[in-house]
Amino acid sequence: MSSKDKEQPAASGAVDRRHFIAAAAGVGAALAGRETLAQAPAAQPAAAPAGPPPSTGPRLFRAELDVTDCEVEGKIPADLNGAFYRTGPDPQYPLRPGNIPFDGEGHVTMFRIENGRVNFRSRFVRNERYLAQEKAGKILFPMYRNPYLDDPSVKGLSRGTHNTHIIHHNGKLLALKEDSPPAAMDLNTLETLDPVYNFNGQLLSQTFTAHPKTDSHTGNMLAFGYEAKGFNTTDVNVFEYTPDGRKVWEAWVNVPYVGMLHDFQMTEKYVMLYVIPLAFDQAQIERGGIHWSWYSGQPTYFGFFRRGGDGKDVKWVKGPERSATHMMGGFDDGNMLYVDVEMSLSNPFGFMPMRDGSKWDPVRGASHITRLSVDVSKKTPKEYGIETLYPDHVGALPRQDDRYNTVPYRYGFLPCPDPAPRDPSKRPASCYARFDLQNRSSMLYRAGEGVQLAEACFAPKGPNAREGEGYLMGVASHNNEGGRADLVILDAEHIDQGPIATVKLPTRIAGQIHGWWVPGSAIPPKRA
Amino acid sequence: MSSKDKEQPAASGAVDRRHFIAAAAGVGAALAGRETLAQAPAAQPAAAPAGPPPSTGPRLFRAELDVTDCEVEGKIPADLNGAFYRTGPDPQYPLRPGNIPFDGEGHVTMFRIENGRVNFRSRFVRNERYLAQEKAGKILFPMYRNPYLDDPSVKGLSRGTHNTHIIHHNGKLLALKEDSPPAAMDLNTLETLDPVYNFNGQLLSQTFTAHPKTDSHTGNMLAFGYEAKGFNTTDVNVFEYTPDGRKVWEAWVNVPYVGMLHDFQMTEKYVMLYVIPLAFDQAQIERGGIHWSWYSGQPTYFGFFRRGGDGKDVKWVKGPERSATHMMGGFDDGNMLYVDVEMSLSNPFGFMPMRDGSKWDPVRGASHITRLSVDVSKKTPKEYGIETLYPDHVGALPRQDDRYNTVPYRYGFLPCPDPAPRDPSKRPASCYARFDLQNRSSMLYRAGEGVQLAEACFAPKGPNAREGEGYLMGVASHNNEGGRADLVILDAEHIDQGPIATVKLPTRIAGQIHGWWVPGSAIPPKRA
Repeated sequence: MSSKDKEQPAASGAVDRRHFIAAAAGVGAALAGRETLAQAPAAQPAAAPAGPPPSTGPRLFRAELDVTDCEVEGKIPADLNGAFYRTGPDPQYPLRPGNIPFDGEGHVTMFRIENGRVNFRSRFVRNERYLAQEKAGKILFPMYRNPYLDDPSVKGLSRGTHNTHIIHHNGKLLALKEDSPPAAMDLNTLETLDPVYNFNGQLLSQTFTAHPKTDSHTGNMLAFGYEAKGFNTTDVNVFEYTPDGRKVWEAWVNVPYVGMLHDFQMTEKYVMLYVIPLAFDQAQIERGGIHWSWYSGQPTYFGFFRRGGDGKDVKWVKGPERSATHMMGGFDDGNMLYVDVEMSLSNPFGFMPMRDGSKWDPVRGASHITRLSVDVSKKTPKEYGIETLYPDHVGALPRQDDRYNTVPYRYGFLPCPDPAPRDPSKRPASCYARFDLQNRSSMLYRAGEGVQLAEACFAPKGPNAREGEGYLMGVASHNNEGGRADLVILDAEHIDQGPIATVKLPTRIAGQIHGWWVPGSAIPPKRA
Repeated sequence: MSSKDKEQPAASGAVDRRHFIAAAAGVGAALAGRETLAQAPAAQPAAAPAGPPPSTGPRLFRAELDVTDCEVEGKIPADLNGAFYRTGPDPQYPLRPGNIPFDGEGHVTMFRIENGRVNFRSRFVRNERYLAQEKAGKILFPMYRNPYLDDPSVKGLSRGTHNTHIIHHNGKLLALKEDSPPAAMDLNTLETLDPVYNFNGQLLSQTFTAHPKTDSHTGNMLAFGYEAKGFNTTDVNVFEYTPDGRKVWEAWVNVPYVGMLHDFQMTEKYVMLYVIPLAFDQAQIERGGIHWSWYSGQPTYFGFFRRGGDGKDVKWVKGPERSATHMMGGFDDGNMLYVDVEMSLSNPFGFMPMRDGSKWDPVRGASHITRLSVDVSKKTPKEYGIETLYPDHVGALPRQDDRYNTVPYRYGFLPCPDPAPRDPSKRPASCYARFDLQNRSSMLYRAGEGVQLAEACFAPKGPNAREGEGYLMGVASHNNEGGRADLVILDAEHIDQGPIATVKLPTRIAGQIHGWWVPGSAIPPKRA
């Protein structure tokens, strides 16, 4: 199929501009974990009160929390045993003007679920950056992925914030930021064990993605680093580790240009990389700005090469200006390689500069679940296919049953604004959609008014559960209660029936970019 | 002077009934640390939203918190070095119907202030009760000071909640509940070191007051226990420990009846105990109720005896039905012994049963700062003096500069509703009053609308500061922000000028009954 024949760009869709703006704002807020900050002023009384002005509240959050045996409405399923981990940026000190909400120290939260009870804990990743700033009592890394402005005292320290994603590997929790190596944490205590975890010296890349995949057959961890030989290098290192931490394969390739390679895909036979024009901007960096800007009109590149080889077979298929930062799933099937992404026509982030100085367009920045494809049998594929799968659903944080990362899959999940709001005068409800790719259908869970849902995570019912059989969980923030958080746990096959259990926290918690489910069997017993 | 000549009972005062109801409610809420819980429903949208019903929020709080280098509006004084500790009841599991907000596990909070920075931490007292209930996953001590309903599994364990007050003694933090021995905690980490601290075997009383005093000359800790030989015993043990933990004096006396002996007074020469008709109620306990009920019409007793003796000289001076639970200060002066209390005509607690089944009266339950006195030179004093010092100020949590616990003093502090509200249609502002007893004047700090102030605590500017020279601090809860807490720090001599510094926390924190300032010099260096 051609690049265009099945694509339904956002601007031509059935829903109006206002809807997309709300959707894009929701996505940005959810990504940044700042929905509750943004909403905080709404909690103030509307009329100016007499007497002293009302409190403006703090600018920062940063509260590390423990709640033992959390209150639960409904019932925690007896077969749900494990932990839901999340991380997100929680700035230690106020962000410098011009900085973006993707900066800020990684704050990891954990819902430990066992025997029908839930314990909650959150801890900062005590990485090199955090510790240095704590000691100094001020920010020392003032700009997102711009080392030029760093305080001279931090020379040689890891810039990693570990605020993007969190996985488990070889008995450790790894907090991830794509510009640096992981930080290793204790799965029970969230204590930082190693602020620069290099897999016992095996990690050659200077960076490590926030989006590793799990091989559906072997359980191996598949991952990569970009700008792998340093700042503004085109080198990408792709690698594979066994569950017990042994590197069994790696390859090096070079991207056509240094764009944000936030996620990737690996199937049974192929590695896929997708280069978008949110690209390295040297001039902006030298002016004191962030690492990236959006290069309007620049092409994308769909890259692929065979697993197990040396990467020299890499092919880069040019495509139109687009953005795709997250993959929902992907697989190879005969001659075809399919990767399902959330795709927008242009810059999806209102806070990322447009290089040409134009105004950010929330409609062109709105993301839809989109299937990319190439015919890998062709010697030099001229284009890649772009098919919008769900034109009514707007959202940038898709997930799947992670046991199906590398193989054909049927179900996906997405937080999105209500695609069919009942009352168009109100902000659309925050929803989780469950997609059935087999029949292109969807199912919806609508959260209540004033509630914002973060990215969802799937937990299988057990090791032998069929695909999608289990629980979908995610954090719901209550804007009308100072951002107070619940964890909602849904039957992943019947999300339209509402939560089976709601874990009610007493306060707001640290925000989230991504979260990860770790089964209880992979969590070591607590140390005495 | 006679019992009556200078007393101005609340009901005859210049302010109306509505004012007193608000005041009494504020006092009850502040005591119980539940203002924010009570206010939480007000944060819900007024109109019923479409879709799922709004969250009702959790019933419990229990969030243990750490915030490093808290945000500060204004500037922390350079000479303020130490820690402000607080404790309050924070039920581990929902209270059984009929139980009262004085029950619930002690949750200790700490504002560690040093070099212009503030670190916040809160931890439960991990006492025997807490640990047993945590293990069981349910409440095992279901009724306030009623052991008859205890789960059989807890036989022999301390019932102490340690939710009332917190002091430092001999390098430890002691969390207090008047029905049991203290729990010792680490001054830096808030780790519970000893859940039943008996002063290396020196504590003979089975109980220990929540209101020790500090001898203004020696720094000795002066304290007592009532029901000292067990449940419903009239025995009171009064004792004195040196700052390094050596018991240097004790005496035993018997009260006329077993009333709540919540506080006491010690002057240079005398010990004063005040027995109120909030008294032991065996029938109520056997019915499954709490320890106390209010015996309307029953007399009070002002008891006193010499320090350093054996207690056999104790004299009990009968007085009218009154309540006084907290002492602001006291001293002896020639033949006279003076004790300043917060006094109400009847039961100050709406949640404590009236034994005769009558309705609780918030006007008769409202407290005013009142001076009690006896002529100790009389062989058998027939009455004690009752003089209302501040008839316009309603409040039950007075404090002083604690360096003046046993000697003549000039200044006192009280959280109270605005005694002269500008807009009588609104709920009176929550205030701190500073009293100058020398000229019977007062000064006021008014908090903003929707803010509730907890008990205040005075921190001297330094070891050589004159009386009242230093800082008054206390926690301000924002009802409109999900109960979010600030610590306000005022110049204690100019509280009307508003905070010098406001420490802005990002969430609600555990509630408070009482708090205590510990100078930095008394806090051991952190263990490595």
